[in-house]
Amino acid sequence: MNQPIQIYNTLSRTKEKFQPINPPFVGMYVCGPTVYGEPHLGHARPAITFDLIFRYLKYAGYKVRYVRNITDVGHLENDADEGEDKIEKKARLEKLEPMEVAQFYTNSYHEAMRLLNVLPPSIEPKASGHIIEQMDIVKKILDAGFAYISNGSVYFNVKKYSETHQYGKLSGRVLDDLLANTRELDGQDEKQNPYDFALWKKASPEHIMRWKSPWSDGFPGWHLECSAMSAKYLGEHFDIHGGGMDLMFPHHESEIAQSVAANRVEPCNYWVHNNMITINGQKMGKSLNNFINLAEFFSGKHPLLTQAYSPMTIRFFILQAHYRGTLDFSNEALQAAEKAYKRLLTAYNILLKIVPAQQTDAELAQFIPAFAAKCHEAMNDDFNSPILIANLFETTRWINGLNENKFSINKTDLDAFTHTFHTFMFDILGLTNETAADTTLTTEGLMDLILSIRQQAKTNKDFATSDKIRDELKKLNITIKDTKDGATWNME
Amino acid sequence: MNQPIQIYNTLSRTKEKFQPINPPFVGMYVCGPTVYGEPHLGHARPAITFDLIFRYLKYAGYKVRYVRNITDVGHLENDADEGEDKIEKKARLEKLEPMEVAQFYTNSYHEAMRLLNVLPPSIEPKASGHIIEQMDIVKKILDAGFAYISNGSVYFNVKKYSETHQYGKLSGRVLDDLLANTRELDGQDEKQNPYDFALWKKASPEHIMRWKSPWSDGFPGWHLECSAMSAKYLGEHFDIHGGGMDLMFPHHESEIAQSVAANRVEPCNYWVHNNMITINGQKMGKSLNNFINLAEFFSGKHPLLTQAYSPMTIRFFILQAHYRGTLDFSNEALQAAEKAYKRLLTAYNILLKIVPAQQTDAELAQFIPAFAAKCHEAMNDDFNSPILIANLFETTRWINGLNENKFSINKTDLDAFTHTFHTFMFDILGLTNETAADTTLTTEGLMDLILSIRQQAKTNKDFATSDKIRDELKKLNITIKDTKDGATWNME
Repeated sequence: MNQPIQIYNTLSRTKEKFQPINPPFVGMYVCGPTVYGEPHLGHARPAITFDLIFRYLKYAGYKVRYVRNITDVGHLENDADEGEDKIEKKARLEKLEPMEVAQFYTNSYHEAMRLLNVLPPSIEPKASGHIIEQMDIVKKILDAGFAYISNGSVYFNVKKYSETHQYGKLSGRVLDDLLANTRELDGQDEKQNPYDFALWKKASPEHIMRWKSPWSDGFPGWHLECSAMSAKYLGEHFDIHGGGMDLMFPHHESEIAQSVAANRVEPCNYWVHNNMITINGQKMGKSLNNFINLAEFFSGKHPLLTQAYSPMTIRFFILQAHYRGTLDFSNEALQAAEKAYKRLLTAYNILLKIVPAQQTDAELAQFIPAFAAKCHEAMNDDFNSPILIANLFETTRWINGLNENKFSINKTDLDAFTHTFHTFMFDILGLTNETAADTTLTTEGLMDLILSIRQQAKTNKDFATSDKIRDELKKLNITIKDTKDGATWNME
Repeated sequence: MNQPIQIYNTLSRTKEKFQPINPPFVGMYVCGPTVYGEPHLGHARPAITFDLIFRYLKYAGYKVRYVRNITDVGHLENDADEGEDKIEKKARLEKLEPMEVAQFYTNSYHEAMRLLNVLPPSIEPKASGHIIEQMDIVKKILDAGFAYISNGSVYFNVKKYSETHQYGKLSGRVLDDLLANTRELDGQDEKQNPYDFALWKKASPEHIMRWKSPWSDGFPGWHLECSAMSAKYLGEHFDIHGGGMDLMFPHHESEIAQSVAANRVEPCNYWVHNNMITINGQKMGKSLNNFINLAEFFSGKHPLLTQAYSPMTIRFFILQAHYRGTLDFSNEALQAAEKAYKRLLTAYNILLKIVPAQQTDAELAQFIPAFAAKCHEAMNDDFNSPILIANLFETTRWINGLNENKFSINKTDLDAFTHTFHTFMFDILGLTNETAADTTLTTEGLMDLILSIRQQAKTNKDFATSDKIRDELKKLNITIKDTKDGATWNME
């Protein structure tokens, strides 16, 4: 890996050369799910984006410690530190202990990630498991003078911080504009300023998830957990912080402020954000009736879906767009992705069956190293998976030509070709060879063959064969039904 | 469910009628794994035992909150509060952050549990995530006068506790004997008494996993986490506490002492312990070269194994013994379990295909409700899974008789029969219909049929058919090879 990797840094709005603080080690922190509902596309996209980055950095020789958290406390219903805790609200509605709700949806999330072939992160810490570390940061920020206590809660003093630092540097927001555009605080508000954010919230009497603290029995503010857990497992200053673009403000902006106030250092060198998804051109939302969770995509059981889409189709679809572009889900687009993914798999499976010759054609001999170089180039250019996929498609004319004996290839070149294809398709894009692995498809193929032989036997009045087929299939729990349009089969 | 469930209570050494504190709610706490190595049989047995109990209590109509912890800190190399933390030691050897090691083996454990069809518990808390709660208990015990501080560590004063309470009541150990049989303390020891146990340990300088406390920068003693997490999620006094028999002393014994000292109440009403496993008659141990982990059982890749054993074979084997009996693993015993499990599945799959008649034979009409009653009886008698399995086997003569048209059965009775079988086999024993689900078996069956048709076609000199078979199979990545002993096939 001599070519450097370029990463688009949200902080500088430019692509920068990736230089880890302490190579070959890389520390990467990514905001994980708030576990109060079934995992959906808004979870799949960041998970797959940072899985791609995790896989490529490891491939490039780095030793990556990848931390992705579980938010199981402190994420209130709106970002202004008001409303119920999302998990407690769900628990109240379902009459469960909040941690039972968090566990249930954590399990759902893990299962969806497993199906999407997303590698587990190196460490997956929970917010509720790091209360001590969060309280320590509150103390540091109070000591540094960037926070104040108000009625048992502790708020970050954004105005004070902005006198010496730039709150808004990540999201590009300007504090004066923010202040000008917001409602006046009424006298009841604990905050000195509407843009202050909670570091510690005093719990109301009915609030279940609470811990003792020097300020009140309460719970940490949502932004705090990521500052605490990233510092604990990656150090106060690490390499990459990722998440969805919707987290840039106020979540990540506040993380920077917390780290600078507490540790006098920004948390990371590179801020990486994946863009949002839409469904049929609309923002996804429960009120819009277009909220499709991942299990529904996999089963096809949702009124907006015309069919089921396999986890690999979803993964391929997400990777077909660059992570910084928006992505619109529709049946048409997913069906196109399904076809494209299968076409690529077919090409790969044909490549596996090519028999090497003595010689490689000159043009092909040039193509193979150029193909590898272009794949690396695409990934080095801010993890450009759509260009990488386009490069993989470039191979199909060669593979088909080889299959039709239009070209020849020797063993060394064939091995190199196969190795590059395999590495980028499976190890880096993280796709799986669903065709080969998909025994359902195999069963369907074998049944097509058997039914066609049976039809031929019936036409030939060879009833010994057609009866044998029926009887043997029955032993396998497969029943045949003859219809006007030919035979159908069913497995119990 | 009118019949009461009887549970063997280790505390009373008798079977007792199960009476939850607050029906229909049941709180159950089970000691989970210390995550510093690959999951093995010693993990599978308690997980499957308490999965059976969890499933049956839910079936019986109880609303069960099942808490099973992850020990990711504080479990020292020996039970006398000495040696390195098991997870830190592994991290040091593998040059990783301790939490990376814990995460890795937590993931392995979850994957093994998924394959064994063990339901996830309602809440799966981590010891490292409950330091505050553990420190609170230390404070309570110190305040109650049952602990002392020594050089920054806090120890439970077993001698003091024993003046008014019975330390040893669970395990049947007598304190005087314990004291008489142990070495004298040398002057360096922090403990006043060799049977005192650590509630809080001061961390040595090189120790990574540490938290600030009123006593020292340190970490909680191993026994404390279960007291803290069970009380947090189930209350100070709950219904069932389970675990392996090896945990009875000192772990569970100390949990009782901690709860009584801190809360003046014993933690639970029923203590349930599964017995140990042996391999070829020997205790399993790394030094004995008979340490086989679950992945090795599933793949067959271990010198002591003559074949692979599916997760359901392992599950069935464990359930074929009552949880309070010892269980010896050997290839012979596992092969017998594999055959028995398949025989039962075959019977069930035949039952599914029985065509109902107008009438049920009188004897069979009596058998069906008696069968259901006996299944309940077995499970109500301290979850006696081997008797339940024997009852399931009792059905095979009826099922075979029905299949051979020796008896007849009407639709209502057939539905009742199938329902009882399904409920106990799949919902309660938690087995899966591997035969039906096993597409590998289906593929093998279809290929046997296709190759036999091809052989017949060749014999008949019907080369159109035999060529068609070869060509169509190639499209499915299946190649045929003709050998002296007939055709073989291979899928890429």
